[in-house]
Amino acid sequence: MKIPILENILSANDRLAAENQKLLAKKGILAVNIMSSPGAGKTSLILRTIEALGEEVRIGVVEGDVASRVDADTIEGLGVPVVQINTGGTCHLDANMVRGSLDQLPLDHIELLLIENVGNLICPTDFALGEAVKVMIPSIPEGDDKPYKYPAMFAAVDAIIVNKVDLLPYLDFDLAAFRKLVTGLNPDVQVFEVSCKTGEGIDGWADWLSAVWTTEVPPRRI
Amino acid sequence: MKIPILENILSANDRLAAENQKLLAKKGILAVNIMSSPGAGKTSLILRTIEALGEEVRIGVVEGDVASRVDADTIEGLGVPVVQINTGGTCHLDANMVRGSLDQLPLDHIELLLIENVGNLICPTDFALGEAVKVMIPSIPEGDDKPYKYPAMFAAVDAIIVNKVDLLPYLDFDLAAFRKLVTGLNPDVQVFEVSCKTGEGIDGWADWLSAVWTTEVPPRRI
Repeated sequence: MKIPILENILSANDRLAAENQKLLAKKGILAVNIMSSPGAGKTSLILRTIEALGEEVRIGVVEGDVASRVDADTIEGLGVPVVQINTGGTCHLDANMVRGSLDQLPLDHIELLLIENVGNLICPTDFALGEAVKVMIPSIPEGDDKPYKYPAMFAAVDAIIVNKVDLLPYLDFDLAAFRKLVTGLNPDVQVFEVSCKTGEGIDGWADWLSAVWTTEVPPRRI
Repeated sequence: MKIPILENILSANDRLAAENQKLLAKKGILAVNIMSSPGAGKTSLILRTIEALGEEVRIGVVEGDVASRVDADTIEGLGVPVVQINTGGTCHLDANMVRGSLDQLPLDHIELLLIENVGNLICPTDFALGEAVKVMIPSIPEGDDKPYKYPAMFAAVDAIIVNKVDLLPYLDFDLAAFRKLVTGLNPDVQVFEVSCKTGEGIDGWADWLSAVWTTEVPPRRI
């Protein structure tokens, strides 16, 4: 009985995600779904991306958290339009929550929408939001074995931004082995190595995102 | 319609958890549910706990993962009885999965059962397994703001084992502020600061766990 219920929820979500995608396309907005473990650096990546691209492209942010609005306050401080979603216990964003936040954003003045999902490597994988691009942020302290344990997430994304490379000298993390694992699961994925703390590697990620934004991107199949 | 369905699942789970608890009590086994983000150090803590207490108490392990059995293989290498649960996409262990693994363990030769939950700070909170003790492992690189974002998990546990303190010199983590936040959510919680890498602080955790094991522990209310 469990699988049919899950499938119904997902297909309702997919319908709403397709509507979000249509609305975003109409407004010319590229939406990016950013996923990671708790504390891997989603908010830090958003702040660095605003710093790198904020002059070039008008950015809006959706902040997803189980509770609190500390990250939204930080982003609002930069003068970037932001909506906080508190899921109240739910372990992922869904298309309906994102739909509600689109209604609160000045869509005519946004070109790039960065959506911070809830910190979780499992549940967000199955829920399309209407995004054009899915990215995930593994971080060095989590260890190089995470693709073994959360293969669906690593296989689902367009880009992997490996954060906290400034900690490499203090940890046993085999970047070559990690890249091999990741490309085994997802041969076409883009992999960036960055430190949101020092700024190292952010240019590569920002250049790629900027190129995606300026290209005619075919809509992600929902 | 969503809430009644969730409540039904939970109460079915709670019934099974109570049965697990009864079985474990009959066998004189103390079960510990270990939860954390991906990569915070659940397996490392289990390895350090085996090292610290393995001579004193007979240990068994249940390893929960979405996929893979790399951790179970490591633990098996130490000669400790271990069962791997692969949840196949499910974001937490439940009482039924644990029941299945109890059937595969030599319960008459186990006194302390360490159950490694799936790496996730949200979903495992709601699912009792039949454990006597719930612990969580936040780690220094995740940042000191996690209690704001995942309050239910921090409030639900008996002990918090802050791992990777060897990285404190390289990160901005305010331990005093973190402890204040945590005890605000959970006044009676035990907090330990450890490094599973260097072994620092493991004695304090192991001594506490050993004391719990040798005390008549009232069963956790499910």
